[in-house]
Amino acid sequence: MFKREFNGIEIREGERLEDLGNGAFIIQNPEKFCFGIDAVLLSWFAKDAIRRKSVTVEVGTGTGIIPLLLCQKTNASKITAFEIQPEMAEMARRSVALNDLDERIEIVTEDVREQDRFAPNSVDVIVSNPPYIKTGSGLTNPKDSLKIARHEFTLTAQNLFDFAASALKDKGKLFIVHKADRLAELTVYASERGLEMKRLCMVHPRLEKPANLVLCEFVKGGKPYLQVDPPVIVYDGEDYTDKIHTIYGTQEPVRQVIEP
Amino acid sequence: MFKREFNGIEIREGERLEDLGNGAFIIQNPEKFCFGIDAVLLSWFAKDAIRRKSVTVEVGTGTGIIPLLLCQKTNASKITAFEIQPEMAEMARRSVALNDLDERIEIVTEDVREQDRFAPNSVDVIVSNPPYIKTGSGLTNPKDSLKIARHEFTLTAQNLFDFAASALKDKGKLFIVHKADRLAELTVYASERGLEMKRLCMVHPRLEKPANLVLCEFVKGGKPYLQVDPPVIVYDGEDYTDKIHTIYGTQEPVRQVIEP
Repeated sequence: MFKREFNGIEIREGERLEDLGNGAFIIQNPEKFCFGIDAVLLSWFAKDAIRRKSVTVEVGTGTGIIPLLLCQKTNASKITAFEIQPEMAEMARRSVALNDLDERIEIVTEDVREQDRFAPNSVDVIVSNPPYIKTGSGLTNPKDSLKIARHEFTLTAQNLFDFAASALKDKGKLFIVHKADRLAELTVYASERGLEMKRLCMVHPRLEKPANLVLCEFVKGGKPYLQVDPPVIVYDGEDYTDKIHTIYGTQEPVRQVIEP
Repeated sequence: MFKREFNGIEIREGERLEDLGNGAFIIQNPEKFCFGIDAVLLSWFAKDAIRRKSVTVEVGTGTGIIPLLLCQKTNASKITAFEIQPEMAEMARRSVALNDLDERIEIVTEDVREQDRFAPNSVDVIVSNPPYIKTGSGLTNPKDSLKIARHEFTLTAQNLFDFAASALKDKGKLFIVHKADRLAELTVYASERGLEMKRLCMVHPRLEKPANLVLCEFVKGGKPYLQVDPPVIVYDGEDYTDKIHTIYGTQEPVRQVIEP
């Protein structure tokens, strides 16, 4: 079999390498799951909360896109990223390795619902781009890894808030991206667990269209007071808006598939 | 004393008459409380839910602006508007009379927290532009009518949701405008009372500024699923946006004071 490598790391059959700009690369497998704009938006939305010594955790990293982007955008010394699917986690680890980020990113194949790696009240920042779709609603994708990434089989919103409510320090922060249509539910689940929504940002495909995504910041033990950021508008006519260019941090946010 | 009249209705000292466009007028008293853009936005946001036979209630009508606008924008045969301040209610009644709307609008000087005019499960639509500010937070305005209109002295958000949860029919709708910074709280209070937030619209003074107001639609017994409408942006440079012109339904949304 023909063997492909990049920085000494194997790129397997069905996989491709994408250029994230600024010298970073990520392995994607279109048969399983590819990252989307939601991950890019979330890392932009969360980055200012992460300092060098922050204890930072990601829940459900998939291909590892969010810690890779956060290592570009922050000087975080260590990000721990949970991924329950072993194959996906293994691919994410190769992406970490080919960027020489093994000291800053650890991918752990554990179920965050049963983890004992982080003690209660020990985490500064949690970020998550969780499965969006309730089990039982909509069609489920027949391919397992997509199913797990998109549907709440192994991680519901409630599971995520349970973990955050326990693991975060007092005033620790949880950042999520989710479908805008679930915002009211999420607000209530979080509030029930002592997580106050303190900041949100609506994402509209176009200025005249309903929001499809929402970015939320919750603070453990925070007092009620919400800042609603200026909206992110993705397209203006045929083009990405200036804001999207700024968020991607590259001249051209269109995906650069450099291999194959 | 010099006496002023309009359509046979007295305009008293300190009061002025404003042209709402399309042949409607309203009395305002700058010493007490004048309506703002929030009332105009709310009547635009709520109008499609109101049919001729709808049992429609407003809570805290102030100068009567919302039922006057709703009578322009809908064919509602009857809107009942609560106003706890007798002087304000009396002025609103004169505005209703000078527009010949006495058959469609009834201003009632009652405390909605103790009302027995509407039986449980009897109302189709409630609209409210309630006091925004929690008592105890911020400075309180020393003039009483402003204080009551702006601060939660006689009507808290919880009071409003209590009334709606009781008075609305199953699937009846509550429309409110509120400060964007209180959205998370409002979502939780409503949910606790069986009112599901089904639609919201953020109002930003400018595209690049945080939202200052939010428009929300709650449905009694509604299932979780939220539509986030395109945002309302008020200004573009020095000008009102096209959307604001559409919402006001007049060429020029600047206020027309026709009788100082």
